[in-house]
Amino acid sequence: MRRQITGLSNPTVKYLRSLREKKHRKREQRFLAEGLRLLTDARECGHVPQVLVMAADRDPHPLLNALELAVDQTGGEVIETTPDVLAKITGKDNPQAVAGVFAEFDTSLASLPRESAQIWLVAQALRDPGNLGTMLRTGDAVGAGGLILIDDCADPFSVEAVRASMGAVFTQRIAQARWEDFHPWLRAGPGQLVAASLRDAQPYRGAPYAAPCFIMVGNESRGLPEEYEMACDLRVTMPMRGRADSLNAAVAAAVLAYEVLDKLES
Amino acid sequence: MRRQITGLSNPTVKYLRSLREKKHRKREQRFLAEGLRLLTDARECGHVPQVLVMAADRDPHPLLNALELAVDQTGGEVIETTPDVLAKITGKDNPQAVAGVFAEFDTSLASLPRESAQIWLVAQALRDPGNLGTMLRTGDAVGAGGLILIDDCADPFSVEAVRASMGAVFTQRIAQARWEDFHPWLRAGPGQLVAASLRDAQPYRGAPYAAPCFIMVGNESRGLPEEYEMACDLRVTMPMRGRADSLNAAVAAAVLAYEVLDKLES
Repeated sequence: MRRQITGLSNPTVKYLRSLREKKHRKREQRFLAEGLRLLTDARECGHVPQVLVMAADRDPHPLLNALELAVDQTGGEVIETTPDVLAKITGKDNPQAVAGVFAEFDTSLASLPRESAQIWLVAQALRDPGNLGTMLRTGDAVGAGGLILIDDCADPFSVEAVRASMGAVFTQRIAQARWEDFHPWLRAGPGQLVAASLRDAQPYRGAPYAAPCFIMVGNESRGLPEEYEMACDLRVTMPMRGRADSLNAAVAAAVLAYEVLDKLES
Repeated sequence: MRRQITGLSNPTVKYLRSLREKKHRKREQRFLAEGLRLLTDARECGHVPQVLVMAADRDPHPLLNALELAVDQTGGEVIETTPDVLAKITGKDNPQAVAGVFAEFDTSLASLPRESAQIWLVAQALRDPGNLGTMLRTGDAVGAGGLILIDDCADPFSVEAVRASMGAVFTQRIAQARWEDFHPWLRAGPGQLVAASLRDAQPYRGAPYAAPCFIMVGNESRGLPEEYEMACDLRVTMPMRGRADSLNAAVAAAVLAYEVLDKLES
């Protein structure tokens, strides 16, 4: 039993489209993700969509069947629609043949299992959802536990961030906190706070990293507030051989995370 | 003598706006860049805009004065307009107070001074202008000579790529070529071609990098064609500790470039 929807003005389509806006996501505590591979990653990590939307002209695929079955078994809804409607929902000209609506996760700091991983990424006031998704993806690659978002960051559940994460939004833990809450939480247990910084910093290569290592990068334009940097256990800097004195925030986090991974594993 | 433009339907405004589209940029051989810092970087690298567009309500700034002077001295045009018109030209809701029109650079491979740098970045079929700009920015940071774009990549002169490059579009050399032209060019002189790869690859840490080292990453979805990887002198891989087996292309290039930089300098 599949519900068919064809009209762009259908209330369900309007509802699904509304999840592209942060205020609606917050109200509904739900978000959108698209693509068979991403939805399959989600399912394999135990996240089954509450609503599955498929293009009526899709090619058959065993993974899609598995997804449908999982949605049925968990009491979710399956909707068939046109590529046009899917494009409208995801805001993408060439939508993938499938999209899902997921319940947002718990992003409280309190539930973060800090000793379950050697590396955690921390972003402060990160504004670009692409950078945020890229950090989640990098976190997955280095085996980080997750990404902690400090102060006013982009929404990790935006379509852009979910897309850029390439599924890591489902494998990485995500926490959201103000600095005033994060800092005491960090200091209440084991954890080394490391900032990518230009202030009073040592070379990032061979610095004395220790697990669990919290790697923090700052806002794309302003970097980290000085007070935050000074609260770190280590401030490290990457060589800058050119005219500029900075890297893209997600790039800086990745270069640093791979160095930390190398040191912690050797 | 400043030309004042206020109307959105002014032909000059329409012309400047048209440079946001690739076909118009190609026809005119000109591109747009915005922001005082970026335009100042450009000027200091010898690139003065042919047309400088400033918001009439801008704050005075000595660097802006220097920019105006340079434009006057090189026979360029200075236009004053409203923030609305600037927003229309740059396609940004909160435009910076200044934008410039530049002549596109020579992007032929033949003119690339390969021995002037230890590192060159190479991107194949890179589709995302943000990734492209980020690679330019990373190239600047590691002291690379420039970025070589193989096959059908995003346009390095798009507003998005220029913005993401944070000025590195003016400091890095850019070349565009098909693989059929790039590969013979590379082999006609010194140069080690290194691919970030999962096929028959060795660990990226401690691999025998040699200058000039050409670091190549592939398309965001498909990676590099196997034939291209097999033509490399080295295939290296980064640890993947998570579910996914890939990194963002610009991130992979950066992690690799910093490793190469470390090895070549030590």
